[in-house]
Amino acid sequence: MPATLPARVRLREVGPRDGFQNEPERIATPDKVRLVEKLARTGIRRLEVTSFVRADVIPQLADGAVVLEHADVPEGVARSVIVPTPKGLDHALAQRDRIEQITVFLSASETHNRRNVNRSVAESLAGLEEMLPRIRAAGLRAGAAISTSFGCPFEGRVAPERVRELAERLAAAGAQELVFADTTGMANPIGVRAFFAALRDDPPGGAELTAHFHNTRGQGLANVVGALEGGCESFESSFGELGGCPVPVGATGNIATEDLVSMLHEMGIDTGVDLPALLDATRDVQRVLGRPLASRTLVAGPVDWAPAP
Amino acid sequence: MPATLPARVRLREVGPRDGFQNEPERIATPDKVRLVEKLARTGIRRLEVTSFVRADVIPQLADGAVVLEHADVPEGVARSVIVPTPKGLDHALAQRDRIEQITVFLSASETHNRRNVNRSVAESLAGLEEMLPRIRAAGLRAGAAISTSFGCPFEGRVAPERVRELAERLAAAGAQELVFADTTGMANPIGVRAFFAALRDDPPGGAELTAHFHNTRGQGLANVVGALEGGCESFESSFGELGGCPVPVGATGNIATEDLVSMLHEMGIDTGVDLPALLDATRDVQRVLGRPLASRTLVAGPVDWAPAP
Repeated sequence: MPATLPARVRLREVGPRDGFQNEPERIATPDKVRLVEKLARTGIRRLEVTSFVRADVIPQLADGAVVLEHADVPEGVARSVIVPTPKGLDHALAQRDRIEQITVFLSASETHNRRNVNRSVAESLAGLEEMLPRIRAAGLRAGAAISTSFGCPFEGRVAPERVRELAERLAAAGAQELVFADTTGMANPIGVRAFFAALRDDPPGGAELTAHFHNTRGQGLANVVGALEGGCESFESSFGELGGCPVPVGATGNIATEDLVSMLHEMGIDTGVDLPALLDATRDVQRVLGRPLASRTLVAGPVDWAPAP
Repeated sequence: MPATLPARVRLREVGPRDGFQNEPERIATPDKVRLVEKLARTGIRRLEVTSFVRADVIPQLADGAVVLEHADVPEGVARSVIVPTPKGLDHALAQRDRIEQITVFLSASETHNRRNVNRSVAESLAGLEEMLPRIRAAGLRAGAAISTSFGCPFEGRVAPERVRELAERLAAAGAQELVFADTTGMANPIGVRAFFAALRDDPPGGAELTAHFHNTRGQGLANVVGALEGGCESFESSFGELGGCPVPVGATGNIATEDLVSMLHEMGIDTGVDLPALLDATRDVQRVLGRPLASRTLVAGPVDWAPAP
């Protein structure tokens, strides 16, 4: 294992999008702006700021354009947004001076895709194949995320060949980054390792491969280990363990960025993230939300190797 | 990774000892008896029932002998208890017809050992070297646990050579199982893998090697993956994620048996444990304790690969 693990990995913080959209109460815009600014100063290089979706569907992110306009994000931090539809893409492209990447998405399984966006996978794919070139034409980086890549809560197993096929189509349409999401925490380290090992030497269209794991059954960081061993060097996570997919009902979602960063640093893998600065941002959002968050490192603090005085 | 992973592993449920001793309120004896009986019928083969310690130090386990006497545990389930001192060993040996293993313990680091048992490591080791032969002479299996094997919250790094040296001494004195505990969650998958890989081919005294990880920073199951890769095939965990070491203050402890079993089964590794039966026991203890427990699979339920109707 150690010989083949990367010396550094790329992380994208998705809390301001994936986390905030799952909060029952909409977070005030000034709080969002401050939290985005704090996250952007942790040393992380990729930050998913918001999503451009219908405000009646996800009112929590209705102020996405305002957040982008007001958040002062340092040079070198790539802001991304998620869009589900051509209309959402129009809104995102109106902010093109304030974003570096737009990511589109679909599910690998029919039932999940239909429940999520009310379309068949083929319909979604056709739509994305029209959207991705528009992102590239605007001079922005294009990403594509594939939900339920490692299993579907409604359909069960999802064939890796099917995921690969979708990835090839999305890359051919212009996606420069492919995000494989374990939407409801059905992945395991062995399967994940095999999945990335099969893709790494010949990634679809030469695209970057990113893993997005959920901690639904506590196995999120174990899957990160499997992905690292399979050659994945790019990950998404959410500060405070915010967000994720509440299927089954009550289940938690994303892996906590603090826990991910702590583990990677202990493994000797560089992330560029300053863990104390990140914990400061997480304490801030915990205060805003007014409830204890599930991140473990938030409670325990970083591993302290210094001897006691 | 997949080629070398074991087809099955051995699990010990330590919740009735490690979990119950950390509860602020003492759990009623009949509840303990019922929970031990439920756990003993999950298919798990090893169950740490209690500890024989001074009742003024750990009043939560003062009824250990009564629990052992009344809990009906099926043939084939090995009951173990933990003892810190010769006096505790006397009490444990008085129950020798109801237990199959007695485990002694010390810390690999001086400061932790002194804070835990108020003795130097050398003093503890000398005491254990007298206790282990008495366990063997009584016809019971002898275990020895080494706390802070992967790091000490007070002293920082713990040299693997030091842990190995202690393990050799304990095995020479009669320990048939060596439990390496990450007491405050300082281990990482790479270090853990190297640790077990260095021991597996020539384990001290031919003893069984067991890993006991904590989920202090969310990395417990990731460390299980590292240990599996290093050749470890025996693990301890606690139902509901009960117990563990509250250093730093507020930190959680053991890995949840449900999460461990779920991950191992998804990896194709047999545990012998029936996950729904285990979840029934965990729901029971959650009801007894009257607060939400940290186990994730308790909330999310097992991975369901069956397609929706």
